[in-house]
Amino acid sequence: MIIALLTDFGNRDWFVGTMKGVILRINPNVEIVDISHDISPQNVHEAGFVLWNAYKYFPPKTIFVCVVDPGVGSERKIIAVETREYIFIAPDNGLLDFVLSEVGVLKAVYVENKNYFLEKVSSTFHGRDIFAPVSAYISRGVDISELGSEFNIKKPEKMFIEIQGEGSYKGKVIYIDRFGNLITNLRASGEINGEVKFKGTTISKISRTYSDVGISEVVALVDSSGLIEIGIRNGNAREFFKASYGDEVLVRVKKINIR
Amino acid sequence: MIIALLTDFGNRDWFVGTMKGVILRINPNVEIVDISHDISPQNVHEAGFVLWNAYKYFPPKTIFVCVVDPGVGSERKIIAVETREYIFIAPDNGLLDFVLSEVGVLKAVYVENKNYFLEKVSSTFHGRDIFAPVSAYISRGVDISELGSEFNIKKPEKMFIEIQGEGSYKGKVIYIDRFGNLITNLRASGEINGEVKFKGTTISKISRTYSDVGISEVVALVDSSGLIEIGIRNGNAREFFKASYGDEVLVRVKKINIR
Amino acid sequence: MIIALLTDFGNRDWFVGTMKGVILRINPNVEIVDISHDISPQNVHEAGFVLWNAYKYFPPKTIFVCVVDPGVGSERKIIAVETREYIFIAPDNGLLDFVLSEVGVLKAVYVENKNYFLEKVSSTFHGRDIFAPVSAYISRGVDISELGSEFNIKKPEKMFIEIQGEGSYKGKVIYIDRFGNLITNLRASGEINGEVKFKGTTISKISRTYSDVGISEVVALVDSSGLIEIGIRNGNAREFFKASYGDEVLVRVKKINIR
Repeated sequence: MIIALLTDFGNRDWFVGTMKGVILRINPNVEIVDISHDISPQNVHEAGFVLWNAYKYFPPKTIFVCVVDPGVGSERKIIAVETREYIFIAPDNGLLDFVLSEVGVLKAVYVENKNYFLEKVSSTFHGRDIFAPVSAYISRGVDISELGSEFNIKKPEKMFIEIQGEGSYKGKVIYIDRFGNLITNLRASGEINGEVKFKGTTISKISRTYSDVGISEVVALVDSSGLIEIGIRNGNAREFFKASYGDEVLVRVKKINIR
Repeated sequence: MIIALLTDFGNRDWFVGTMKGVILRINPNVEIVDISHDISPQNVHEAGFVLWNAYKYFPPKTIFVCVVDPGVGSERKIIAVETREYIFIAPDNGLLDFVLSEVGVLKAVYVENKNYFLEKVSSTFHGRDIFAPVSAYISRGVDISELGSEFNIKKPEKMFIEIQGEGSYKGKVIYIDRFGNLITNLRASGEINGEVKFKGTTISKISRTYSDVGISEVVALVDSSGLIEIGIRNGNAREFFKASYGDEVLVRVKKINIR
Repeated sequence: MIIALLTDFGNRDWFVGTMKGVILRINPNVEIVDISHDISPQNVHEAGFVLWNAYKYFPPKTIFVCVVDPGVGSERKIIAVETREYIFIAPDNGLLDFVLSEVGVLKAVYVENKNYFLEKVSSTFHGRDIFAPVSAYISRGVDISELGSEFNIKKPEKMFIEIQGEGSYKGKVIYIDRFGNLITNLRASGEINGEVKFKGTTISKISRTYSDVGISEVVALVDSSGLIEIGIRNGNAREFFKASYGDEVLVRVKKINIR
């Protein structure tokens, strides 16, 4: 049984290690895998996008524990969501929207049952006091129905703009990765013949991979999650373009070969 | 059996991975958990504080291996300390003071027995050559008495100033976390009605959690380890106050509800 | 069975977590150990050096998965190399040169057999689509002969300059660690009586360890991997010297006590 962790706690302080201690104290046999702890502080959208890219590659029955939680200690609720393959635990703040936009939900509950919390619950570190023990008990076989009252979770709006034919598509940068690659919310269902405009630069073709262009040249491609991405071969597009989340990206599609 | 690692080695170089290789070569069945490897270089006090926040949440019998060791290769000794629940291995440089100020010691020894070291011991990487193999042998059942001569370890002074009634308390910033929250050495045994002064700013109440104040506002609260903390909701108090370790913090307590 | 990961993917995005998901989906019983994910982007040489420092401390049969892969998606090949103790998987870009310069190869193959890849292979994330599943299948017992055609791998040139007697040796900085220590390609087979010149500074002796000099003083020593290193006690030599990879280092040896 795997518990996968995704937080904005960083790796410098004791937050993540402490969560792992709590989990292993309750279930010594669980395997803990880190997705990321370096989500930008309080950036729920970023966390949701990272989770969306990763979750479907994990083994069935993985429990995803997501703690990017600016409302910790307030009236915001914590939810547990069961899908056909996985269980997700997160604050009820939209973090799961990317995932829920594409998977069916079997059951969703509010996490309320203090029997599965640490005895003393702080008002600022629910990762340790609620998320960690709850996930550990689930990994030991506790059904999420035990955690609290069931509710109907709303299917979120579509998170991506689908490129499915000729025409112009306006999207934006929704994530910038460690290499400075700019990832957009434009999803391509196939190989695109077309061009990309970004901050005054026209990229005249959509490539297969970074090394299709010369070193230090700008490249646009469909990335490994199916999204239009702008990068610089062996360079950093974020720095080159001084790009930020939300920057507008235009894609003009002449032809698309649907896969 | 768990070995928990705490170092200032960073995650970029081969130091931590190599320690894990050494440990798993000796005991393939041990579970290794990272507390932190991003302690500021040579900052023994910071390491001790991080350990103190985390250790009590780990399963009994966890072996804590702490390598923040500016004196590596010198005459400084390495110690192993057994408490009722845990075993700690660290340089004899004060790293364990926070922990030892609150737990009873069953046995303390100097780590001297070369049978439990790597065959060739360098003078600059005892994490690999001594700490890792010694911890792995302990996880296989070696009693710490085997490691070297026993000694009487002194109980350290109190590490915190206890707020237990009305009055004024002068403390200081002893840790700044990933979010820029300023953690002090003032420990509250309950809910405080009072105010906090820091660098010319008066924070007129002590809140329960970050979201008790408006976004970007300064907040003082009792943190999840019981210490007075100054933060900024969804912001960074370190940057806002240009704060550093050692900065003075004043707390005026009108009333305290002892828990 | 251990799979050890070494990449330039960073720990912030979903890249590493996703690889782990893929691996555990194929082999839930494998143990995954991180060597580093913070290799400088596309820096194959740095990755090779980190691997060289770490690999020999891992248990026999460890599978090393190395993904620093600027040519991903191009015609560059992926190779799997079996030595007496280990298996290495890496792009065919020189990453393994440090290791292969000192170990004998039993078998080397190109990784070509799509039966061991994910069903859909992207052109930009072979870590997820090829490296991870291939390593997981090997950990389940697949012989590397199954992966593709065998080839004769060339023994790389010597990677280090060996200091084996009196005289002057000219080397260079090949790695700078988290502490700012400058590691050179000059390897010492014993204790050296001599001096080091670097950027106009003469370090008049070669010490055993950092604390052989005063705090904030420059120190030269033979590091824990046998290489000449320049550091500053409790300080940062990279910052002090404004040092970079490739900077020239001169060592004058008066006497050497061969170990």
